[in-house]
Amino acid sequence: MTNGHAPAAPPRSTLVVTAHAGDFVWRAGGAIALAAARGEKVTIACLTFGERGESAKAWREGKKLDEIKAIRRDEAERAAATLGADVRFFDAGDYPLVESAELTDQLVTVYRDTQPDVVLTHPVEDPYNGDHPAAHRMALQARVLAQAIGYPGDGEIIGAPPVFYFEPHQPEMSGFKPEVLLDITDVWDTKREAMECLGAQQHLWEYYTDLAVRRGVQLKRNAGPNLGLAHKTMAEAYMRPYPQIAKELA
Amino acid sequence: MTNGHAPAAPPRSTLVVTAHAGDFVWRAGGAIALAAARGEKVTIACLTFGERGESAKAWREGKKLDEIKAIRRDEAERAAATLGADVRFFDAGDYPLVESAELTDQLVTVYRDTQPDVVLTHPVEDPYNGDHPAAHRMALQARVLAQAIGYPGDGEIIGAPPVFYFEPHQPEMSGFKPEVLLDITDVWDTKREAMECLGAQQHLWEYYTDLAVRRGVQLKRNAGPNLGLAHKTMAEAYMRPYPQIAKELA
Amino acid sequence: MTNGHAPAAPPRSTLVVTAHAGDFVWRAGGAIALAAARGEKVTIACLTFGERGESAKAWREGKKLDEIKAIRRDEAERAAATLGADVRFFDAGDYPLVESAELTDQLVTVYRDTQPDVVLTHPVEDPYNGDHPAAHRMALQARVLAQAIGYPGDGEIIGAPPVFYFEPHQPEMSGFKPEVLLDITDVWDTKREAMECLGAQQHLWEYYTDLAVRRGVQLKRNAGPNLGLAHKTMAEAYMRPYPQIAKELA
Amino acid sequence: MTNGHAPAAPPRSTLVVTAHAGDFVWRAGGAIALAAARGEKVTIACLTFGERGESAKAWREGKKLDEIKAIRRDEAERAAATLGADVRFFDAGDYPLVESAELTDQLVTVYRDTQPDVVLTHPVEDPYNGDHPAAHRMALQARVLAQAIGYPGDGEIIGAPPVFYFEPHQPEMSGFKPEVLLDITDVWDTKREAMECLGAQQHLWEYYTDLAVRRGVQLKRNAGPNLGLAHKTMAEAYMRPYPQIAKELA
Amino acid sequence: MTNGHAPAAPPRSTLVVTAHAGDFVWRAGGAIALAAARGEKVTIACLTFGERGESAKAWREGKKLDEIKAIRRDEAERAAATLGADVRFFDAGDYPLVESAELTDQLVTVYRDTQPDVVLTHPVEDPYNGDHPAAHRMALQARVLAQAIGYPGDGEIIGAPPVFYFEPHQPEMSGFKPEVLLDITDVWDTKREAMECLGAQQHLWEYYTDLAVRRGVQLKRNAGPNLGLAHKTMAEAYMRPYPQIAKELA
Amino acid sequence: MTNGHAPAAPPRSTLVVTAHAGDFVWRAGGAIALAAARGEKVTIACLTFGERGESAKAWREGKKLDEIKAIRRDEAERAAATLGADVRFFDAGDYPLVESAELTDQLVTVYRDTQPDVVLTHPVEDPYNGDHPAAHRMALQARVLAQAIGYPGDGEIIGAPPVFYFEPHQPEMSGFKPEVLLDITDVWDTKREAMECLGAQQHLWEYYTDLAVRRGVQLKRNAGPNLGLAHKTMAEAYMRPYPQIAKELA
Repeated sequence: MTNGHAPAAPPRSTLVVTAHAGDFVWRAGGAIALAAARGEKVTIACLTFGERGESAKAWREGKKLDEIKAIRRDEAERAAATLGADVRFFDAGDYPLVESAELTDQLVTVYRDTQPDVVLTHPVEDPYNGDHPAAHRMALQARVLAQAIGYPGDGEIIGAPPVFYFEPHQPEMSGFKPEVLLDITDVWDTKREAMECLGAQQHLWEYYTDLAVRRGVQLKRNAGPNLGLAHKTMAEAYMRPYPQIAKELA
Repeated sequence: MTNGHAPAAPPRSTLVVTAHAGDFVWRAGGAIALAAARGEKVTIACLTFGERGESAKAWREGKKLDEIKAIRRDEAERAAATLGADVRFFDAGDYPLVESAELTDQLVTVYRDTQPDVVLTHPVEDPYNGDHPAAHRMALQARVLAQAIGYPGDGEIIGAPPVFYFEPHQPEMSGFKPEVLLDITDVWDTKREAMECLGAQQHLWEYYTDLAVRRGVQLKRNAGPNLGLAHKTMAEAYMRPYPQIAKELA
Repeated sequence: MTNGHAPAAPPRSTLVVTAHAGDFVWRAGGAIALAAARGEKVTIACLTFGERGESAKAWREGKKLDEIKAIRRDEAERAAATLGADVRFFDAGDYPLVESAELTDQLVTVYRDTQPDVVLTHPVEDPYNGDHPAAHRMALQARVLAQAIGYPGDGEIIGAPPVFYFEPHQPEMSGFKPEVLLDITDVWDTKREAMECLGAQQHLWEYYTDLAVRRGVQLKRNAGPNLGLAHKTMAEAYMRPYPQIAKELA
Repeated sequence: MTNGHAPAAPPRSTLVVTAHAGDFVWRAGGAIALAAARGEKVTIACLTFGERGESAKAWREGKKLDEIKAIRRDEAERAAATLGADVRFFDAGDYPLVESAELTDQLVTVYRDTQPDVVLTHPVEDPYNGDHPAAHRMALQARVLAQAIGYPGDGEIIGAPPVFYFEPHQPEMSGFKPEVLLDITDVWDTKREAMECLGAQQHLWEYYTDLAVRRGVQLKRNAGPNLGLAHKTMAEAYMRPYPQIAKELA
Repeated sequence: MTNGHAPAAPPRSTLVVTAHAGDFVWRAGGAIALAAARGEKVTIACLTFGERGESAKAWREGKKLDEIKAIRRDEAERAAATLGADVRFFDAGDYPLVESAELTDQLVTVYRDTQPDVVLTHPVEDPYNGDHPAAHRMALQARVLAQAIGYPGDGEIIGAPPVFYFEPHQPEMSGFKPEVLLDITDVWDTKREAMECLGAQQHLWEYYTDLAVRRGVQLKRNAGPNLGLAHKTMAEAYMRPYPQIAKELA
Repeated sequence: MTNGHAPAAPPRSTLVVTAHAGDFVWRAGGAIALAAARGEKVTIACLTFGERGESAKAWREGKKLDEIKAIRRDEAERAAATLGADVRFFDAGDYPLVESAELTDQLVTVYRDTQPDVVLTHPVEDPYNGDHPAAHRMALQARVLAQAIGYPGDGEIIGAPPVFYFEPHQPEMSGFKPEVLLDITDVWDTKREAMECLGAQQHLWEYYTDLAVRRGVQLKRNAGPNLGLAHKTMAEAYMRPYPQIAKELA
């Protein structure tokens, strides 16, 4: 959908809600970098640092909880800066990330503050990590609450921004079916650089590079030979839980 | 997705494959009129006239098979002209529409001839009318065959154009979930005029007007209050069986 | 299934569990009016007034929370009286309606008090309003608990009354597939009158009238031409989560 | 749904479409016996004798094809007579039962001849026997064609009778979920007697008796303690592919 | 998959997590007895005694809560001993069994203590008893948490043991599809003996014997005639939520 | 499941039914090589050469149909020899591969001739290539027919061998969920060598190497840290349409 923005409109705003400090890089780094490259605003709401569930290497090295949080925060901040986004930490505690009315309310505030045109978050299921579905549920509930004039709090109510689910680590086991293939070829180098900020998970650098190649092959397979796509198209996959609003079928 | 077409590119092409003579009006008239209004080419492949299964009134009036076909053809041609599209009839016989390699091959020829950028057809299921799924299967198979250089026949092979399923008469019973809501407000009068070409099914004029209102309400409900949409937005709903190719999440 | 009740049996009892004050009118007003017209008892358990999430107009007019609750209560009471039902308010707070053991326990008491032969409530999913699924879960859990002699509390345990899910606002997006089409033609005027008690949501009067027409068309489409149905049959759609108990296939 | 038939109305008519000679006994014998006991007409359209795929014992005994067909026909005729139904054989050949326009057309004739108020047939899937889904598809297609005044052939067009799928041999593997539990206690002895007409499949007598007990337990479990059901309620399970038309929720 | 354990390896360990005192007998008694017969260790984590929801007979006899708990504990201990397993009670309160971080943490401790090679628990859904899904969710969450070195607590972290869901009382209504059929013929007498320890539920002895026969018939139907199976093979059915790890396809 | 084969038993037999000449290499080369390495017999039934739909490069080079078939046959024979399997060609014509009773009957003969203990074939769906589902349907139907003593033809009837679906090119779009992860590390070099026999599809060598790495990562993720798996475990993914028969849960 193309929106003809009036000249003085504020830049488009993207809100990314994630469970752990690394998620936005592996799963949505390309979308974030593309938006930033267009001059848009991107805000990452990072509910936990992934300090317990996704920092095995640091624990095995004998690091303490606070040290681990600091390392993860630092990595995430550098990755966000590389991509061109702001990151806000909620330090809600992971493994398990517990849903609560308070944390959801904090997210409502973020929604009203950032007035997102697009929302990215985890999909419904993940049988390997319960924090992801918990973040998903709070992100979606807060989006609905933030639309209601009767829900208390500062800031203007929001519209109904489209939501995209980014890809989980084991897509087939999590009910993930690619519904949108986003061409991230132009910002691939930036995404790779952001991934390399995450030193604790170096084994994933190649893994997510391969994934981008494969999603790129599928993009080309669904686009036909005649679109002038790059030889090595890189892509990210997303799902859409709400209907797309369109002016044109394409 | 917006494609920056080079100046000399041919106009975009839309191919609509339907079982019966009226389907393209009720289900996709808005999309067709929008494309035509943008100066694009739209071709309707109409596999049967709906002479047996969707002409009860004419049969009750005692009309003969050939008369009924002629009436339905005339109505469809006027409706297509109103919308700005070409219609091709295959007269394959309805109720039941029988799948065959010959008819599928004819569709391959249409694909290669029209080189569609977009394909519209029936969805997978319809427990009330088996001709619709039969048309669906041939439309999709022909689209795959037309891509293969090894499949014989005239014309250039095609790319992999996106496919959209239009809405069946009883959506919930046919596994239809709106994935795209297309704003047809600007061409609503044209669609209504085309519907009124179908004199044999006058009882459906109001029914499909109400449907467009309701899909319009849902479009607004999924777009938020701040998009400057028309007070009475009219819409059509579609499904996407293949992933959307995107340059931007929106 | 028709049960030949012995003469002295108490009238049949219907229990309707809803999230907000207006739900029982739009979604089940016909079923309620039909039961009342047969001389049966209908009790509506209304968990919240919909004061935050479904009263946008009042908030925009600058009304206060207590005023809004009072308006919604008054509207709901007049609508219930019109339909011939009793309504009980729980004032549990909406947007979000929070599930709790206490509220579920109150519902157990209502079940044991009303001894329902039929239960109506929201379906499992609603991606546009989380209060509806929350009401659904408590309604179903309380129904199971109320059957257990070991669950404490006043009143007799209940049997296993059939459950019907009424139709959500966006059925296709909520996994709603009509499994029962209820002919409400005879009580349509009463339902319309009850809808008109809800002055705050006047834009929905026509919307739900159109829905009743459309469900009526589908009822006739699934019944054949020879049942002597009214020209303009009006209907409501329901789902059945538990198997129907039958003495006859029909 | 109870229909108040006018005095002179013809008796209700049930049509059962099955792949093999034994299916109507194991899967729907109770429903058939109940209808017959109410004085209604029941017609069984038996597409094949099950001569190749369901007569292993006879083949191992060295019997010939024609002998086997004669045995199966005789058994089925006696079972049908026991239940109170007419059976018509089509001898279309099993293993595989091949779908064809001719056989479907013969079924259209049966529909128009019997004017069914209720149709019973196999469900959509059966990974253990492809003849069952083939019979299902032809039964459903013929039902739709028989409704069309434009479809040629003798007899009056039919309405849209409700369809029930009876239970396959391995329900969980065939996507079968009980949606209707039919109380067959009153005709159980008749069903058992009909089963005992099928001497070639004696090992199934106990199997299907146990199934009736289990479905009866589930019937009681879904009906509550207070319905005055028989101590040993026997039941059959069915699915409904089309919505139930109701005058009352029960 | 067969693992060639080194000689000094500890015996394999199975952990069974259930909501109520009787579940492990009816649903997994065969698997437990098989493991015990192979000299393996089996631990049953029994979250409640089923004192409110599954002890109707005792309540009707006027017994008190503590008496009922004592009866159920005694029965379960005798059944576990018969099968060759240890049982640990958590007395968390049933009907409803409430999910909590504390109870989940206790399960993490059990996982780390028992180091299971296999986990058995309830499947995702049960529309007749909410305690079963609650136990399911805690069992699965604790399994994930117990794998994380960052999750606090005593004991070694665990691997990712395969999980099997045992069969609920109404499989088709609970989304249960048999994915593994376990041959329990050799330990059938032991399972029957354990069932007979549960005097309060005598009506289920025959019911679950019949189920084992039926699952045995299906086992043979999926195995072909040439495996030398017992004439009366007895079986239990399971689902696998995670992929099987195999060295060989068989 | 481990079967204790008696000494004189014939070697186990695996039957692979595929649409095109390359499928068995990319999708099941590891399973084939493993079976062959255990001294078992593997037979590949290759329904077409993939001459039209999967030989784009050769067509673009101007080769003729017969040349292309010869090339594909030669490649497939060398790949099969590398893996240790026999390959039989049916030359049934691809794009589209048309289902027929004759071809299905030829497959029945292969089943009875090879007496497979295991069957590998395509899964149910593939929206990118209709030949794959067509091969799937014939492979499954022939397996059922080959079990029936009444189905004519030479050879002994077969049992009910387990079926495994190998992985399609776009798993998420084809409803493919890994249910079995097969460790092919030990035969990886052989599979790679067989892939390199397929010179016409060189671009897939790296693609399917990456896939094996990724499935290997998932295998380890589902197996826990303590199984002594290879650092770089390679794997193939499969689905199981029929229940697994087991002597032990593992």
